Amino acid sequence: MSKARTDIEAVEAANTALYDALERGDLDLLSAHWLPDDISVVHPGWPVLSGRAEVMRSYALIMASTDYIQFFLTDVEVSVMGDTALVTCTENILSGGPAEADGSAGPLVGGLVVATNIFRRTEDGTWKVWSHHGSPVLIDRDDDEDGEPEADSDFGPGVP
Amino acid sequence: MSKARTDIEAVEAANTALYDALERGDLDLLSAHWLPDDISVVHPGWPVLSGRAEVMRSYALIMASTDYIQFFLTDVEVSVMGDTALVTCTENILSGGPAEADGSAGPLVGGLVVATNIFRRTEDGTWKVWSHHGSPVLIDRDDDEDGEPEADSDFGPGVP
Repeated sequence: MSKARTDIEAVEAANTALYDALERGDLDLLSAHWLPDDISVVHPGWPVLSGRAEVMRSYALIMASTDYIQFFLTDVEVSVMGDTALVTCTENILSGGPAEADGSAGPLVGGLVVATNIFRRTEDGTWKVWSHHGSPVLIDRDDDEDGEPEADSDFGPGVP
Repeated sequence: MSKARTDIEAVEAANTALYDALERGDLDLLSAHWLPDDISVVHPGWPVLSGRAEVMRSYALIMASTDYIQFFLTDVEVSVMGDTALVTCTENILSGGPAEADGSAGPLVGGLVVATNIFRRTEDGTWKVWSHHGSPVLIDRDDDEDGEPEADSDFGPGVP
């Protein structure tokens, strides 16, 4: 097994671990998967949040308002250059709101998000998140032969 | 001037040059700013597009349907680690559609997009784009003291 192959497997595992921590709603575990500083995050539809304090506060907010969330990752692609890895993937999200007054489970909703996750290899060889950018998929991908998606406008619907 | 300072300035210049090429509608110039392969792009609301052919075809499509586009970049933040640079910025976009039948300019529309742009230092010392991820800003940033944006839901409006 080549080194590159091992790197890609290690990055895939780090990427999976990131979403596992989100599914568990474990902020400490999630925090441990990120670099100590110079990090940034864009949640779907949100502005850029920079720095560890702001990034972790946003995840605390998301976890506090999410009773249940599950990520089915598809289209995972990994590109490693030196000590940096770029992962793109589709997050097929199933999430649930707070329980109903009668104690039954809250409504489940699905969503489609694409993410670009940047990892750095740290001194102990583990891969940590440097940046996460997630955005909603608002257009359909054509099934025609060229596979080119059709946008409502140049930069997607609602955006010029 | 420290080396880090120089790196950041070089990356800022590469980032500006990327948007200049888009404003000019010059696909060859734009193409020259990207790494030769393993690249990916997410346009606002679009799925992930991977590989040089697919990425460049998407820009050709955007340029073909855009008569006028101007980017006012704000909140530009650069983080350099080794031979990789991570840039986040807000794209304040002013764009125009095709001219009217009477020859007058088409309608101008504005849009707000946040971008995460990843650059790699190449062998000749120039910085080339590895990945661009742009997404629409769909929520307002609070002006209150904690600066935390408010989402319609956990992952932004329309996304669970």
